[in-house]
Amino acid sequence: MAGRPENLAGKVAQHVSGERLWDRLMVLSGFGATESGGVNRQALSDEEIAARAQLVRWAEAIGLEPSTDPLANLFLRYRGTNPALPAVLIGSHIDSQPTGGKFDGAFGVLAALEAVEAIIAGGVRPRRSIEVVSWMNEEGSRFAPGMMGSAGFCDVRELDEILRIRDQTGIAVETALHKVMSAESRVSHRPLGAKPAAFVEAHIEQGPILELEGKTIGIVTGIQGKRTFRVEVAGEENHAGTTPRSARRDAFVAAVDIVRALHEALWDDEDVVRLTIGMFNVSPNVPSVVPARVVFSLDLRHPDPARLRALGDAIGEVCRTAAGRCAVAVHELLHEPPLEFPLAIRQTIRSVATALQVSCMDIPSGAGHDARYLHSLCPTGMIFIPCKGGISHNEAESILEHHAADGARVLAEVAFALANAD
Amino acid sequence: MAGRPENLAGKVAQHVSGERLWDRLMVLSGFGATESGGVNRQALSDEEIAARAQLVRWAEAIGLEPSTDPLANLFLRYRGTNPALPAVLIGSHIDSQPTGGKFDGAFGVLAALEAVEAIIAGGVRPRRSIEVVSWMNEEGSRFAPGMMGSAGFCDVRELDEILRIRDQTGIAVETALHKVMSAESRVSHRPLGAKPAAFVEAHIEQGPILELEGKTIGIVTGIQGKRTFRVEVAGEENHAGTTPRSARRDAFVAAVDIVRALHEALWDDEDVVRLTIGMFNVSPNVPSVVPARVVFSLDLRHPDPARLRALGDAIGEVCRTAAGRCAVAVHELLHEPPLEFPLAIRQTIRSVATALQVSCMDIPSGAGHDARYLHSLCPTGMIFIPCKGGISHNEAESILEHHAADGARVLAEVAFALANAD
Repeated sequence: MAGRPENLAGKVAQHVSGERLWDRLMVLSGFGATESGGVNRQALSDEEIAARAQLVRWAEAIGLEPSTDPLANLFLRYRGTNPALPAVLIGSHIDSQPTGGKFDGAFGVLAALEAVEAIIAGGVRPRRSIEVVSWMNEEGSRFAPGMMGSAGFCDVRELDEILRIRDQTGIAVETALHKVMSAESRVSHRPLGAKPAAFVEAHIEQGPILELEGKTIGIVTGIQGKRTFRVEVAGEENHAGTTPRSARRDAFVAAVDIVRALHEALWDDEDVVRLTIGMFNVSPNVPSVVPARVVFSLDLRHPDPARLRALGDAIGEVCRTAAGRCAVAVHELLHEPPLEFPLAIRQTIRSVATALQVSCMDIPSGAGHDARYLHSLCPTGMIFIPCKGGISHNEAESILEHHAADGARVLAEVAFALANAD
Repeated sequence: MAGRPENLAGKVAQHVSGERLWDRLMVLSGFGATESGGVNRQALSDEEIAARAQLVRWAEAIGLEPSTDPLANLFLRYRGTNPALPAVLIGSHIDSQPTGGKFDGAFGVLAALEAVEAIIAGGVRPRRSIEVVSWMNEEGSRFAPGMMGSAGFCDVRELDEILRIRDQTGIAVETALHKVMSAESRVSHRPLGAKPAAFVEAHIEQGPILELEGKTIGIVTGIQGKRTFRVEVAGEENHAGTTPRSARRDAFVAAVDIVRALHEALWDDEDVVRLTIGMFNVSPNVPSVVPARVVFSLDLRHPDPARLRALGDAIGEVCRTAAGRCAVAVHELLHEPPLEFPLAIRQTIRSVATALQVSCMDIPSGAGHDARYLHSLCPTGMIFIPCKGGISHNEAESILEHHAADGARVLAEVAFALANAD
């Protein structure tokens, strides 16, 4: 850290070890490692349980106190000088998509651990406790919807409702949680909730902007809005060789027509609308049978609340008009309006980055994060670092070691500053 | 049978019991019965093994000799006065689609059993043996491709190649066959093949024409040609919230564009082309991930060989042109040209139907059948009866009892005539 000003910021950040952080990222990526260099570490899986145990070992080695709440959100506490005060939470999640990368979520948790380790090494104990947190099931690929642990923590979703959700094999969240709890019998329990003093989440950008702009730190201004739908198309099963086109009610053909109509109706020249059909299931899904049924997902995002509302409200009619001789039903699963993080936290991040001479810029988040729900509970902010080519939710996800280190430095100073604030 | 002329035809047909045939159809439909009134009795499954045991019990009760070949094709032999002569085979299959009906295949096997029972009751033993046959895996929904047993019997496909094919759970045909064989330890074994004197398959039409025309018997003129393809579309997995449309290589969007282009390129105003996309699999198939890969099936059928060739040959180029920024690969799995059954057998069916005063008409087959492969080995014909609304490969499949009985009457006389022919 030679050449940097001897200010408060430098005191903590200089103890961040980019090498240690990188080593831990590589160790953690071994839990659920895939052949193609990615990670399959879905929520509450054996792989995640093993990764959590590793987190606890690292935390206990530096004196942090681990605890879990009824949703298996995992907290690693560095006690402040006044432990009665609400704590500052920093972290993210360590569950992944089935074909996820090494850094989505994991970077935020390990950068938080590194930040606390640096604060401890700096020999300066903050007023408030700082807790590294790993939220349960951010990805939502095994148990839908995602951001489940933070939703329960922030009372956005009821505990009972969450416990009843099942994965595709019929296992309930409640059952999967029992497995985690029994594997972590040594970790102490705490109740759900408790309003934190603040929450800061570091994360890879998952988009191409920081890389394109040549900046290291993204000061996240907010999260775009999101609406999700399930569309069900019902036709009639029939024989592929004998049924004339005119006599068919082919659910697949209708679904394709619907998808085309949706792409047209929701098109914007500006390329701001994010429209994704990621899941598409055909029944009975055999080559020689005209499909009777298609169920597909629709993920719609936009930063402008009015535009998001208008686009999403049009979907039902577009689907019905394009369905031809098939029946169609549209179910909305989620409507989260866009949000903006408080200026004060964004300003703290900017001041720290500037003092550390790390380049930064304002950036909106295209993806949802646990910070969305924490924002409803306490002052919340996010710190992005670049990821290669903007590629994410992909086994090829990649970041640079020095970006990770700079992200942890900024996070360490921000957390320390917030933990000493009134 | 009162009022019918005292000719040879009437002698055998008068012993067909429509009631017994219907009862057996209902009993057989209990093996693999689904809640919605259909049948799930896929090839070599426990349900099919149980149904085969029932067939053997019925056959043994009237003195037929059961035997199976190395592909578990099941033969129920009624010995002729000159058993050294090649036998006449009559039958179909009893495996079903996962959501199949009660009559597809099962009607043909039980009508054949009823025909033999009528011949026995008539007290007239034919020169040639008559064998009721149930071909292994006609549907091809568990082990692809279908018509597997008849393909092996007729040497269209090599035994070794068939044995290695696996279902979606990884079970090989060879393993599944062992299970059948050990369940049927009392049934004698015979080698694969042996050229029959003739083969006649009764089957439900699986189309609407006989019903629309008010005819009971379809004299099948031939089977339309069929080409099947597997299309693989490769794009790039990415995050649904962060990746602009212009930066995506969305395999699902490309696949939908390809499907639309195929529908346009293969469109015919006459509605003779049969184009079906029955299987469509998206990866990783989660709502918040831009799909990296789509694999779909293409089933193309046409009665005219030149047109079938031209349409199928155009598919690769249509796919490549419509794939946009994604890569596409097209693999042809099957190319079966149209075929025409010999006039002599069609004439025998017509004469019998006329003598029995059962209405009949010529009709092409839209679906493939085991008769396709038998046609390459021996004189072959097919007899259709109507099915309600032309609905098939569907749990709602339905036929009328008196149509079934008339089909069995015609089959009995045709089989008897062929078994006495030189």
